[in-house]
Amino acid sequence: MRGPISVDLLVLGGGAAGMSAASWARRKGPRMSILVLEATTMISHAPCGVPYFIGGLFNDPALLQAYDVGFFRERRGIEVMTNTRATEVDVSGRWVEAEGDGGRMRVEFDRLVVATGARPKRVKGVEGERVLYVHHPADARRLRAALSAASSVNIVGGGVLGVELAEQLARLGKRVTLVHRGPYLMSRDLDRELGERLTKGLESMGVRVLLGVEVVSSGGDGSSLRLSNGSEVKADITVVAAGVQPNADLVSGQLPLGPHGAVQVDDLMRAGLNYVFAAGDVAEHRNAVTGLPDWRPLAPIANKMGLVAGVNAAGGHIRFPGVVGDLVTRVGDVIYGRVGLNEAEAARAGIRYVVGSSTMRSRARYYPGGGEVYVKVIAEEPTGRVIGGQVAGPEEVVGRLGVIAAAIMRGMTVEDLFFVELGYHPSVNRAWDPLVLAARQLLRV
Amino acid sequence: MRGPISVDLLVLGGGAAGMSAASWARRKGPRMSILVLEATTMISHAPCGVPYFIGGLFNDPALLQAYDVGFFRERRGIEVMTNTRATEVDVSGRWVEAEGDGGRMRVEFDRLVVATGARPKRVKGVEGERVLYVHHPADARRLRAALSAASSVNIVGGGVLGVELAEQLARLGKRVTLVHRGPYLMSRDLDRELGERLTKGLESMGVRVLLGVEVVSSGGDGSSLRLSNGSEVKADITVVAAGVQPNADLVSGQLPLGPHGAVQVDDLMRAGLNYVFAAGDVAEHRNAVTGLPDWRPLAPIANKMGLVAGVNAAGGHIRFPGVVGDLVTRVGDVIYGRVGLNEAEAARAGIRYVVGSSTMRSRARYYPGGGEVYVKVIAEEPTGRVIGGQVAGPEEVVGRLGVIAAAIMRGMTVEDLFFVELGYHPSVNRAWDPLVLAARQLLRV
Repeated sequence: MRGPISVDLLVLGGGAAGMSAASWARRKGPRMSILVLEATTMISHAPCGVPYFIGGLFNDPALLQAYDVGFFRERRGIEVMTNTRATEVDVSGRWVEAEGDGGRMRVEFDRLVVATGARPKRVKGVEGERVLYVHHPADARRLRAALSAASSVNIVGGGVLGVELAEQLARLGKRVTLVHRGPYLMSRDLDRELGERLTKGLESMGVRVLLGVEVVSSGGDGSSLRLSNGSEVKADITVVAAGVQPNADLVSGQLPLGPHGAVQVDDLMRAGLNYVFAAGDVAEHRNAVTGLPDWRPLAPIANKMGLVAGVNAAGGHIRFPGVVGDLVTRVGDVIYGRVGLNEAEAARAGIRYVVGSSTMRSRARYYPGGGEVYVKVIAEEPTGRVIGGQVAGPEEVVGRLGVIAAAIMRGMTVEDLFFVELGYHPSVNRAWDPLVLAARQLLRV
Repeated sequence: MRGPISVDLLVLGGGAAGMSAASWARRKGPRMSILVLEATTMISHAPCGVPYFIGGLFNDPALLQAYDVGFFRERRGIEVMTNTRATEVDVSGRWVEAEGDGGRMRVEFDRLVVATGARPKRVKGVEGERVLYVHHPADARRLRAALSAASSVNIVGGGVLGVELAEQLARLGKRVTLVHRGPYLMSRDLDRELGERLTKGLESMGVRVLLGVEVVSSGGDGSSLRLSNGSEVKADITVVAAGVQPNADLVSGQLPLGPHGAVQVDDLMRAGLNYVFAAGDVAEHRNAVTGLPDWRPLAPIANKMGLVAGVNAAGGHIRFPGVVGDLVTRVGDVIYGRVGLNEAEAARAGIRYVVGSSTMRSRARYYPGGGEVYVKVIAEEPTGRVIGGQVAGPEEVVGRLGVIAAAIMRGMTVEDLFFVELGYHPSVNRAWDPLVLAARQLLRV
C-alpha cells in the first residue's frame, strides 16, 4: 500500500462534474493541493458523443475527452490519476483507499468531492458475450469494433441513448430493432405528440421499433431476445441502453441518498457535511418547478454542479438553483427537446395545467430551406406560471428551450414569456416566432 | 366625399402592427365594427423580406404579405380598405379624412389605433431617376426590375437593410459598393469586434465597402455619388438605405411625440388619450434596461405592440413591458444579432459595465459541420445585472439572444443567466454552451 498521500481536496471521478469541480477549486484556491482519482483511462469525458463515434462521424476516440491529464496537470496544477479506482471511502475518517496502475494506495483528504457519475442499468436475464452495455466513452472503441462487425443489432431501451444509437446504426446500414416498453420512444421525456413524431422519424430511417414490450430474457450468447408478448427477436448483437443509475455505492450509508438513489446535496452541493460535496450524475438536487428531489444525469447540469462544488469546497460561495431537465436529442434532420415538466410529470405532481402549442415552417414562408417546427408551452392553472415546454424542429431548438428554461427558473408567467423579445430573420424564424405564438395561445386578455 | 362611415375602431395602417391590433380587437370585442385604412396595395406586410425577393430567393411578391384582405374580411370580420390613405386626422373630433380608389371619404371613430409605420430617411442631395429608396414591400417588384437590369449598384447606408441588400445583390453577381459613415458596418447595432467580422464577411462576398465617409451629393441622374473624402463612385443604380423615420406627420401636434419623433405611448399603448392608441414603427416606448424612451422599428415588436393596442382598445387589459431591441441579420452562412444595450449605448447611458465573451466551434469538436460561434454578455457593474448581449454563428443565434433578452427583461444577474439550464446535443452546441461560458466569465465567486 502506497501513501498515505494527504491532499486538501480529493475529487472522486474525473468526468464532467469532477474536472469542473477540480478546476474551480483551483481557481478559487490557488494554493490548495488537489487530486482527482479516475477509474478509467479517460477524464473530462461525457457519454454524449459515443453514438456518433460508433456511427463513424469521427474516428479518434480521444475527441470524446475535452481535455487530457497533461492539460490539468500542467495548466491547472491539478494532479490526476487515471486507471485508479477508489475501493473504500471513510467519510468521517477522511480517507480513501484506491487501487490502480501503481497498486493500492491510501489518500487522506481535508475536503472531498464525490463525482463518481452513473452506470448503465443492468437488465435481468439479458447476458452473454453478444450483449453490450453502452455508456462510458472509455468503452467506445471496443463497442465500435463489435458493432461494426454486426449486420443486425437489437437495442433494449428507447430513451435518448437507445434512440441515438439506433439512428446511427441505421445510418450505417445495419438492421436495427429497438425494443421499448413505453407507448412511444422517449416516453419518459416527451409527450405523446412529439414522441410519436420522433418514433416515426426513426422508423422512416429503417429502424424496426417494438413498443409496449419488455425483454424477458436473452437466449444463447445474447443474440436473441425473448419479449413479454411471447415473440423473439434475433440479431448479431444486443445493446442494452436501459437507462443509468447513480454510482453511489461507495458512499452509501455514509452520505444521505435521495429517492433516486443519488447523493442528496444542498444548494452548495454539500452532502450533509461541511467538507463533503457531491456533483454530477451521482448527485440529486431539487426540481425548480416542484421543489422536490430530482435526478437529471445530464452533462450541462454536471458541469455546473461541479463548478458549484469546486467553488464552495475552496471556500467560495455560490448556490445552485435547481434543475429543469433541459434535454435535447436528434433524429435525422430534426432536433427534439424538452424542459421543465412534461404533461405526465405535471399530472403526477398534482399540478393543474394548460398547454399552448404552435406548428409552422421554421423560416419565413418565402425563405428556402428549413422544415417544420413545433413548440409547446405548459403552464400551471390558474397562475399562468410556465412549468414546461417541448420543441422540435430543424434549427433553433436549444435556444428556444433555453428561453423556456429561463422562464421556468425565474417564475415567469405565460404573459411574461410572450413578451420576451425574440429577434427575427426570415432565414431562421418567423416574425411571430412559434415560441411567442405558443405562449400567446395561453394569454388571458 | 363619401361617408361619413362610423366605426367603433379605426386602424390607420395595415402593416404588422395595424393588422395585429385589428385582429386582437376583434378577438376581444366580437361585436365591434373595425376598419383598417392602408395606403398601399398590401397589408400585414413587413419589409424584412424585400432583400430576399430582390435577391431572387423567391419570385412571388404576394408572399411578402402574411395574409390578404379576404382573409381579414371573411375570417375575422375586419373591413380593410387598401390604396386608401388618411389625409387628415382630427383626434379630438374623432374623425379622419381619407383618399383612395373610391375617391375621398370621411370616417368617424370611437377609438383609434395609429399604426402608420415608418418610411425611409431621405439623403439630402441624392436624387435622380437612378436613385431608389427601398422600404415598403409594395415597391418590391419595381425595385427588383430596376436592380436586375443594373450590373453595378451603389448602396448608401450600412445598417441592416443596406447590408442584406448588398449581400443579395453580390450573390446575383452585381458589382456592389456600400457606403457607410460608421467605422464598420452596422455600427449602430454591433460592437466593433462583431461589426468588423460582419464587414469582412460581406467584403469576402465581393462587396466593396467604403467606411467613414458620407455621401455629399449625387451626380447626374443619380448614377454617381460624391463622397465626403472627395472621391466619386459610379454605378448603374444608387439605392438609399439610410435608415427609417416614424410616419407620424398625420398626428404630430395632436399626439405626444417622443425624442425619436415617434408617438409616445404608455404601457397600454395609449397615446395620451384613453381612446387613442399607437403601435409599431410609428410608436416609441421604453427601453427595458434604461427606462428611457426608445424607438426600435422591428417587426416582432410591432406585432406585440399591435396586440397590446388591440386588446386594450377593445376594453381588455394587457401591459407592454418595454423593448430590448433584439435584432438579427445574416451575411452568408453567419447570423449576427444583438439585444439590449451594446457597449456604446451603455456608455452613453452612463452605465458602468463589464463584458464576458466566448468563441468556439458551434458543435462538439468531433461533430461535423457548423462553424464558429461567438457570444458576448454585457453586465452592469457592480450589480451584475445583464444589460446586453451579442451573438454570431451559423446556428442557434436567435434562441441564445432570446435567453439574454429574458435575462434583461426579468432583471437577472450574470449568475442567474449562468444557471439558466441549456440543453446540449453535440450536433448543435457544446456541453458548456458558449452563452453559459460568456456568463461564467463574469461570475464573482
